[in-house]
Amino acid sequence: MAGNSTGKEFTVTTFGESHGKIVGVVVDGCPAGLPLSEADIQVELDRRIPADPKIVSARIEKDVPKILSGVFNGFTTGAPIAVTVENREVDSGSYEEIKDLPRPGHADYPARVKYGGFNDYRGGGRFSGRVTVALIMAGAIAKKLLSEFDVDVLAYTRAVGKIKTEKKFSTEEIRRNRYAASTRCPDLSCAERMEEAIVAARKEGESVGGTVECVALNVPVGVGEPMFDSLDADLAKALFNVPAVKAVEFGLGFGLVELKGSESNDAYVMKNGKVTASTDNMGGVLGGLSNGMPILMRVAIKPTPSIGREQKTVNLSTMEEAVLTVKGRHDPCVVPKAVPAVEAAVAVTVADHMIRVGFIPKVLERKN
Amino acid sequence: MAGNSTGKEFTVTTFGESHGKIVGVVVDGCPAGLPLSEADIQVELDRRIPADPKIVSARIEKDVPKILSGVFNGFTTGAPIAVTVENREVDSGSYEEIKDLPRPGHADYPARVKYGGFNDYRGGGRFSGRVTVALIMAGAIAKKLLSEFDVDVLAYTRAVGKIKTEKKFSTEEIRRNRYAASTRCPDLSCAERMEEAIVAARKEGESVGGTVECVALNVPVGVGEPMFDSLDADLAKALFNVPAVKAVEFGLGFGLVELKGSESNDAYVMKNGKVTASTDNMGGVLGGLSNGMPILMRVAIKPTPSIGREQKTVNLSTMEEAVLTVKGRHDPCVVPKAVPAVEAAVAVTVADHMIRVGFIPKVLERKN
Amino acid sequence: MAGNSTGKEFTVTTFGESHGKIVGVVVDGCPAGLPLSEADIQVELDRRIPADPKIVSARIEKDVPKILSGVFNGFTTGAPIAVTVENREVDSGSYEEIKDLPRPGHADYPARVKYGGFNDYRGGGRFSGRVTVALIMAGAIAKKLLSEFDVDVLAYTRAVGKIKTEKKFSTEEIRRNRYAASTRCPDLSCAERMEEAIVAARKEGESVGGTVECVALNVPVGVGEPMFDSLDADLAKALFNVPAVKAVEFGLGFGLVELKGSESNDAYVMKNGKVTASTDNMGGVLGGLSNGMPILMRVAIKPTPSIGREQKTVNLSTMEEAVLTVKGRHDPCVVPKAVPAVEAAVAVTVADHMIRVGFIPKVLERKN
Amino acid sequence: MAGNSTGKEFTVTTFGESHGKIVGVVVDGCPAGLPLSEADIQVELDRRIPADPKIVSARIEKDVPKILSGVFNGFTTGAPIAVTVENREVDSGSYEEIKDLPRPGHADYPARVKYGGFNDYRGGGRFSGRVTVALIMAGAIAKKLLSEFDVDVLAYTRAVGKIKTEKKFSTEEIRRNRYAASTRCPDLSCAERMEEAIVAARKEGESVGGTVECVALNVPVGVGEPMFDSLDADLAKALFNVPAVKAVEFGLGFGLVELKGSESNDAYVMKNGKVTASTDNMGGVLGGLSNGMPILMRVAIKPTPSIGREQKTVNLSTMEEAVLTVKGRHDPCVVPKAVPAVEAAVAVTVADHMIRVGFIPKVLERKN
Repeated sequence: MAGNSTGKEFTVTTFGESHGKIVGVVVDGCPAGLPLSEADIQVELDRRIPADPKIVSARIEKDVPKILSGVFNGFTTGAPIAVTVENREVDSGSYEEIKDLPRPGHADYPARVKYGGFNDYRGGGRFSGRVTVALIMAGAIAKKLLSEFDVDVLAYTRAVGKIKTEKKFSTEEIRRNRYAASTRCPDLSCAERMEEAIVAARKEGESVGGTVECVALNVPVGVGEPMFDSLDADLAKALFNVPAVKAVEFGLGFGLVELKGSESNDAYVMKNGKVTASTDNMGGVLGGLSNGMPILMRVAIKPTPSIGREQKTVNLSTMEEAVLTVKGRHDPCVVPKAVPAVEAAVAVTVADHMIRVGFIPKVLERKN
Repeated sequence: MAGNSTGKEFTVTTFGESHGKIVGVVVDGCPAGLPLSEADIQVELDRRIPADPKIVSARIEKDVPKILSGVFNGFTTGAPIAVTVENREVDSGSYEEIKDLPRPGHADYPARVKYGGFNDYRGGGRFSGRVTVALIMAGAIAKKLLSEFDVDVLAYTRAVGKIKTEKKFSTEEIRRNRYAASTRCPDLSCAERMEEAIVAARKEGESVGGTVECVALNVPVGVGEPMFDSLDADLAKALFNVPAVKAVEFGLGFGLVELKGSESNDAYVMKNGKVTASTDNMGGVLGGLSNGMPILMRVAIKPTPSIGREQKTVNLSTMEEAVLTVKGRHDPCVVPKAVPAVEAAVAVTVADHMIRVGFIPKVLERKN
Repeated sequence: MAGNSTGKEFTVTTFGESHGKIVGVVVDGCPAGLPLSEADIQVELDRRIPADPKIVSARIEKDVPKILSGVFNGFTTGAPIAVTVENREVDSGSYEEIKDLPRPGHADYPARVKYGGFNDYRGGGRFSGRVTVALIMAGAIAKKLLSEFDVDVLAYTRAVGKIKTEKKFSTEEIRRNRYAASTRCPDLSCAERMEEAIVAARKEGESVGGTVECVALNVPVGVGEPMFDSLDADLAKALFNVPAVKAVEFGLGFGLVELKGSESNDAYVMKNGKVTASTDNMGGVLGGLSNGMPILMRVAIKPTPSIGREQKTVNLSTMEEAVLTVKGRHDPCVVPKAVPAVEAAVAVTVADHMIRVGFIPKVLERKN
Repeated sequence: MAGNSTGKEFTVTTFGESHGKIVGVVVDGCPAGLPLSEADIQVELDRRIPADPKIVSARIEKDVPKILSGVFNGFTTGAPIAVTVENREVDSGSYEEIKDLPRPGHADYPARVKYGGFNDYRGGGRFSGRVTVALIMAGAIAKKLLSEFDVDVLAYTRAVGKIKTEKKFSTEEIRRNRYAASTRCPDLSCAERMEEAIVAARKEGESVGGTVECVALNVPVGVGEPMFDSLDADLAKALFNVPAVKAVEFGLGFGLVELKGSESNDAYVMKNGKVTASTDNMGGVLGGLSNGMPILMRVAIKPTPSIGREQKTVNLSTMEEAVLTVKGRHDPCVVPKAVPAVEAAVAVTVADHMIRVGFIPKVLERKN
C-alpha cells in the first residue's frame, strides 16, 4: 500500500484494521526530552467517544493505549514511539454477508478491485473509521509537543446537517466547551439541536453530515515549504485523509470568490510592537507560509454512508444488480468523532512543519 | 526550502524565480518510450496566456520551452527530463521600493521572516505566479503520458466574482470550449460577462476571484494509497499548491453537509456489463480510492492580492505602519491563468498515482 | 530520530529497544496476495540464535513473532503488516552502572550527546544488536515475497578472525549447509575451527570479527535506479545499517584495484539462448543496475566491542578518564548473528527495488 | 527512473546525459544566507580535469557553470539552486556502431533491457562518468556550506593499480598536495609513479583501477540517523553511486576482521577538556553516529571498463556472440576524476545529515 506513513520530520506510520487484533501507530522523529505518558494519549482517545449513546454506534469500547517503545523514565528518547490499542468488541459476523455486496459510499468496491479481493473487508477493514484511533494517538503526541511551544489546535462542530451555529467563539469558549456536548459544538444550545437532528436521522434509518472548524493558534511566522509542501497544502492533505472529509477551505474559503481584492486582503498593522493583520480572511496562510495569524480551516463531513435503509448495489460475484441493507454498528453522524481526528491531523502536520523549519529542535531542553 | 519536489513515482522538481534567469522543472520517473517534443509543452504554455490583453497583465511574453535532457530520438528515455523557459520581459525596477513594504495578501512578509531577508523579493521571487510555468510544463508531460491511457484532465472556469454559470457541460463541450474564451469558461455567453467583470474590476483598481472546476476522466478503479496518500488528499495538496487557491472540494463538497445519507450515497448499478454508479456526488473518490466515476473537483481562487488601490501595510525596517500602492504588472483576475495550472496539478498527481498502482508501466510499449 | 524507515515501495519501519517491552516492525507496501504466517517469520528468527551456547551470550530467549495486522485468511492484504516480539529475558540491572561510562566501540557516547541524555541506555537501547530482530522479521517477509519470483538470498560466514575458508561453494551447498554449523560457515570443517576461535577469544575476555558473504540469485536484469538509488548503493546502505558492519564490497571489490581492465571486465556470452557473462568480477551490478549475474557481496564484521577486559573510557558526568569493565550479556563474536541479518538486509532491498521496477506487481496472482 | 534525487534536507537532483545539451543539478534545501558564486563551483569543476593530457581522455572541455536560480545579491535565498554546464565537445559518431554491442563492464546491456531500448546510449548516456559533473557542482555548494561550520572534506589517491603509498599524511599535507599531482596523490613521488603506471596501461590498450581515501574533519558528535539512515550507511550509499566504486570501508575496514576487540576498540580519553578517542579504527562512526573523530573512508575504483583491446560481447539485435573494440574517448584510469567526485559525495551527505540534526540551521546568520 505504501501510503501508510506521513510527515517528513514528525513521521507517522499507522497499521491495523477494524476487526483485526489491534490498531497502532509509530511516531518517528518526535524530539527527545518530551514528557509523555499513556495518560496523555488516553485523554485524546476518550474524546473520540461521546458520552452520549444516543448518537453513537453500539461499539463503545474504552480504548486503552499502550506505549511500546520510545519513552524512557517518562520522557521521549528520540527513538520511534509505538503505541497500540486492542480491538476488543469485534463482531465480524454481520459483515460476512456483504463480502460481495459493496456498500454505497464506502471503499468496499474500489478496495476489492485494488487489492484483488485479498483485502480484509470486515467492518471496512483498513478503511474503517476505527483506524482514526491511530491518527488520534499520533495527534496526542503532536499536541503534547506543540504545547511546549504554546501552539494550540482546537476543532469543533460548526454544523450538523441543516443545524448550524453562526456564533463567533472566543478562544476561551472553544477551549472550554468544544468537548462539553456530545456533538462537539461549543454553542451549547445549538449542540443540543444538533443532537436532536442526529437522533431524528437515526430513527428514520438515515444519516447526516456536518461541518467542522479548526483553528491552530500561535504558529510562528514562516512555517511551510513552498512550492509543493505549502503549509495549507499539507494541512489539506492531512484533512482529506480523515475519513468522510469531502471539502476543505482556509479563512473565508469559497466565500472569497465574491469579494474584491480590497475586501479580501488582510492589511498589516502594528499591535503591541508586533506585525499582525487586521483581519484573517486568508486563514493565516499566504503563499503557503504561516503569517502569524490564527490558521483557520473548515471541512465538510459527508453523511455516514452506512444507513439503515435499503440501498441499490451490485453483487460483485454475479455482477448483477442487488439490494443491500447494511447491518453491523454504525453512527448516524460521524461529525463528533471527526472533531478529535481533525485536531490530530492538524497537530501532526503543524508539528512536522515546525520541526522542518527548526522552530522545534531535535532535543528539548531539560526543565527544572 | 526542501519542498520543491512532489510525487513519489512521477517526481516533479521546480526551480526559478519571477525575475531570475529562468523558470525550470525536472521530471523524474516519467516512463521510457513516451513520444515527447517541445511542441507538446508549448501548447500548454500558450494556454496560460489568454489572447485578450484586456484582462491580463502587461507581461505577455511568449514562453518557449527548451527540453534539456531525458528525450532522445523523440521519445522519453527514462532519465530525468529537464525543461526551462527564459524570463525575458523582466522589469525589476518597480519592485525595489516595496522591499520593506510587504504587499497584503502576498507572501512577502512571511517569506522575509522565513528566509531572514535573503529571499529574492523581486516580483514575489519564488512566490510569484510566474513559477506556475514550471508546473504547467510538468503537467504537459503528465497529460501526454495520461493520454496514452485515455485519461483526460479538463479544467474550466465556473465563476468569476459574482458571475457564475450553472450550466451542466458535456465532456465534449468542455473539451472544445474551455480555452475558447479568454476567461476559460465553456459557457461562452457567460464567459463574456466574466470578462466584463474583470475589465470593470481593473478599471476601479480592484481585482476579483473565482471558481475553477476540474474533471479527470477514465481514471481506473483503485487509484490512491490510503491512509495518508489518498487520491483526494494528494489532489487537494496539489491544488492548494497552486497560487491563490483557498478551498478545494470533491463532488458535491460542502453541498453534502445538508444532505441525508440516502441522498448522498452513489448507488452502484450495472451499465454495459460494468459496475458503475448512478450519481457522482462523491466526485469519484471513496475512502481515498478512485471508484471509476469522473473525479470532480472545484477550487476557490482568491481575488488577486495586487490591486491598484492604496493599502495599509507595515514598513519592516522601521516597524511603523505605512501605506502602499502596488506598482508593476498584475492581473485583475488570475482565474484564467489558474485553469491550466489546475489541469497541470491534477494531471501530475493522477500520473504519479497511476504509476504507483502499476496502471502505467515503467516502459511504454512500442507502437508500430 | 526520523531514520527508522527504509525502502520506497517495500517500506520497513522498526521500533523497540533492547530492554523495552517489545521489538517490532511495520512493513508497508508488501503486495497483496502473498501467503504469510507467523511460521514463515519464526524460521528466520530461529536462525538468529545458534544452537550452540558456547559461542553466544546467555540471553537465549526464543523469539516468538506475532503478526498484528495486514494478513487475512492467510494472505497479505496490501495493508501494513505489523509484527512484534516481546523482550522477555531483560536484566537491566547490570547496565545502570555504565550510564555515565560509555563503552568503547559502542554508540553509548554519541547517542548520549545526540539525544541530550534522554536515550534509553540500557543494553544499548535502540542501538543494541537486539533490534536486528525487527530487520530479520521484515527480511522474512521479503524473502517469502522474493521466493514467489525465484529470487534467493543466501549469506554465510567466510571468515572468523584469522580463520578463513577459501572454498568455492556451490549454490546447493550454501543452501543446505549455511545454517548447519553454529558459526554459519558452509565449509563444515572450517566452521568447527571458527567455533574454536570464538571459544578461545571468550576465554581470554576477548572478541573476534569476521567476514560474511551474501549472494542474491536470479535477480532480473535492470533492477536499480541510477543515479542515486543504484542497486549496489542501496544494498551497501542496507548492509552498513546492520550493526558491526564496517566494510562492503561487490564482486572482487578491493581485489579489483590491482587488476587490468581486460582482466576485470566480465565478457558477455550466449548461454542457452540467453545473454550472460563468463565471469562475475563485478558482483552482478553495472552502473547501478543488476546485469543478471549473481549479486555477490562481502562485508566485514568488527570484533564485538563488548569484551570482558578492562578498558579505558571517560566518565561523562565528571569528565574524567575512567576504567570500565563491561558486564551484562555479550557475544564474543557477532558474525553468526550477522548472517541472517545480512540476508534480511539484502532481501528487503532487492524486494523494494524489484517492486520499483515493476518486476513484482502490487497484487500477486491467485494460484489454484 | 525516479532515483535521480538524494538527500532529505540538502536534496540533490541531477539531470543530463553525456551527449545531450547539458548536465545539470538542482539543490533544494540549501540554507538561505550562504555566500555563493559561480567561481565557487568553477574551482571544483576544474579539479575534475587533471592538467596532464597524458592520463586523461581527449575530451578536455572546460566546464563553465551557470547558476540559474536560488542566488540573489551573492547569497543563497532558500529557493532551489539550479546549476548547469553545457556539453560542448560532443562527438557522438563513434558510439553509433556500439548501439547493439554492449561494452563489457559498462551499463549498456542492463540499461538497454531496463529502458526497453529507449535509453540514450551515446557515450553511455545517463550512465556516463560525464554526469559526475552534476554531483561535483552539488558538492561545491555543500563544501561551501560546510566550510561555514569548519567541516572539511578531503579525498586523495592512495593507490593506482599496484602502485600504492603507505604514507601517513598530515591534514595540512593533504589539503595542500591532494590536487598538486595529476594523479591526486599527496605523496608526490608516488604520484609520479602512478602516472607512469597509467601511461603504461594506456600504451598497451589497458586500464587500471585504484584506491581513493577520504576524510571528513570536524563533523560534530551525534550526526547520523539510525536505524536506517546511519551516517556510514548514507556515506556508503553516496560513494557507491560514484561511477566505478566497487568497495567502501570505514576506518580499518576489512582490516578489522583479524583484530581482537581489545585491539579494535577506540578507547575514550580526555584531551584539552574534551572527550576524544586515542585511535580511529572505527573511522569516526559508531552505531551509525559520528563520534567526533575524523570520518575516514576508503573506496576501490575498478579499472576503466573502456579499453583499447578487442573484447567479447553479444550483439543484442542478432543475439549472437561478437567482438567489440571500444572507440571514442576514454580514460585509462578514472581514479583522478573520482577524487573530487568522492569529495562531493561525502560533502553532500554530511551537509544533509548536519542539517537533519540541526547543527546547520535553515537560515545562516548574517556576518558583518
